[in-house]
Amino acid sequence: MRVLLTNDDGIHAPGLLALYRELCEGFELNVVAPESEMSAVGHAITLTSPLRVKAVHRNGAFFGYGVKGTPADCVKIAVQELLERPPEIILSGINLGANVGVNVLYSGTVSAATEGAFLGIRAAAISLDTRHDPDFRFAAQFSREIIRYIMENGLKERTALNVNIPAVPTEKIQGVSITRQGVGRFKERFERRIDPRGNVYYWLTGETPLEEGLADTDARALEENRITITPISYDLTCHEEIGRLQSCPPPSYRHLRDRLEGQ
Amino acid sequence: MRVLLTNDDGIHAPGLLALYRELCEGFELNVVAPESEMSAVGHAITLTSPLRVKAVHRNGAFFGYGVKGTPADCVKIAVQELLERPPEIILSGINLGANVGVNVLYSGTVSAATEGAFLGIRAAAISLDTRHDPDFRFAAQFSREIIRYIMENGLKERTALNVNIPAVPTEKIQGVSITRQGVGRFKERFERRIDPRGNVYYWLTGETPLEEGLADTDARALEENRITITPISYDLTCHEEIGRLQSCPPPSYRHLRDRLEGQ
Repeated sequence: MRVLLTNDDGIHAPGLLALYRELCEGFELNVVAPESEMSAVGHAITLTSPLRVKAVHRNGAFFGYGVKGTPADCVKIAVQELLERPPEIILSGINLGANVGVNVLYSGTVSAATEGAFLGIRAAAISLDTRHDPDFRFAAQFSREIIRYIMENGLKERTALNVNIPAVPTEKIQGVSITRQGVGRFKERFERRIDPRGNVYYWLTGETPLEEGLADTDARALEENRITITPISYDLTCHEEIGRLQSCPPPSYRHLRDRLEGQ
Repeated sequence: MRVLLTNDDGIHAPGLLALYRELCEGFELNVVAPESEMSAVGHAITLTSPLRVKAVHRNGAFFGYGVKGTPADCVKIAVQELLERPPEIILSGINLGANVGVNVLYSGTVSAATEGAFLGIRAAAISLDTRHDPDFRFAAQFSREIIRYIMENGLKERTALNVNIPAVPTEKIQGVSITRQGVGRFKERFERRIDPRGNVYYWLTGETPLEEGLADTDARALEENRITITPISYDLTCHEEIGRLQSCPPPSYRHLRDRLEGQ
């Protein structure tokens, strides 16, 4: 089976390498990943500058393509240009740090998976809930289970899986939950600093949750040391709101037309 | 009423200026927008470099803040740091070019509005369906109607409006439709070129729709010269798929634990 590996931490990231080492046995792997770290790029794509692609070697052998672009760029150019045959599965990760709640919006790791879904390819984003001293072994092995799970159960069209794995000793993992994305708001802070030349700059910092996470959300389940699997889609429509808005009188525009014609 | 204006074409873009000129009568305006063009950045935010903010003047008077960052950065720093009081409405635009279908995912204009929704502020993205010789007058006046519409009818929590306006003479506008985001796939192409130093680079180009847009989608309604209003949310969960996945046997992990312990 042909599997495309990508991520947002860059082609040299240990999380990607862990995935590669685990899956190189049993799968036909291709690696197409950003040349450098691309965290928090969301679903950005590169339109105003050209994409550069570099062959990357490890221990003297071809390892994959490093792209000067975003994770979504990597998936697009892999599928539409670089690979001879499209992959059957795309795995994005293993990300250093969880991708749950509204942070999913900002996540390059997740956007690679949704880009895959958009291209009609089954895809999953895999993230490990730690930023320090990661041990990717369990997450890498579990990724193989995720592939099996997707192949056995299928996946709704236009949908990808967002998988988060607690970074605890494996005997502390409490189970696997199918969750929804948390939508709880938090208050952020900007830290204002002055650089040596006297200019002001800001760092985004300090998230304070304003609402408690609900029990069936990814964030809460992960806190309880459960592996979370959230099916995500790239349809942003709030379908519930359509009917209500359709029953409201629409904004008028004819008087604007008359006003413009009178000018 | 306090209105925050932002966009992804940059603080000097004519679409933003058109909005400013139309709304400076009757509203307390604040402008916080990217210093330079930020198209297709999606919901990127800036974490690995500091944000710089510059006061921008027009005709000798303070006009707004130019931020070296993305549209989502602009909304965050405006609301959480730069403005004395949070805005009651956020308008993002007027974008040069439509934001419909899956392109909504890549749109910085739309991400500014969803960021507003995330911060609990009513927001709309306004886009004009042309890339050349834009006449923003109707779209600017219609934006005032959108504010009225939102204030009169409210807007579901966590939801923003994505508004697209046909770039046709106003008498050709066929009406206003509440739509859903199109999800039709298209095939893209990468154009491969060689630079003067012999290096390969690629441009993303050439979208060919693979599926026909459905009648109630934003893309189709806009083609029919209708103004489209799509309620969008930042919850990416595919709720329909949760129940089905919950009924499947979950991927197992206990054997991985045993394997790791045996190592």
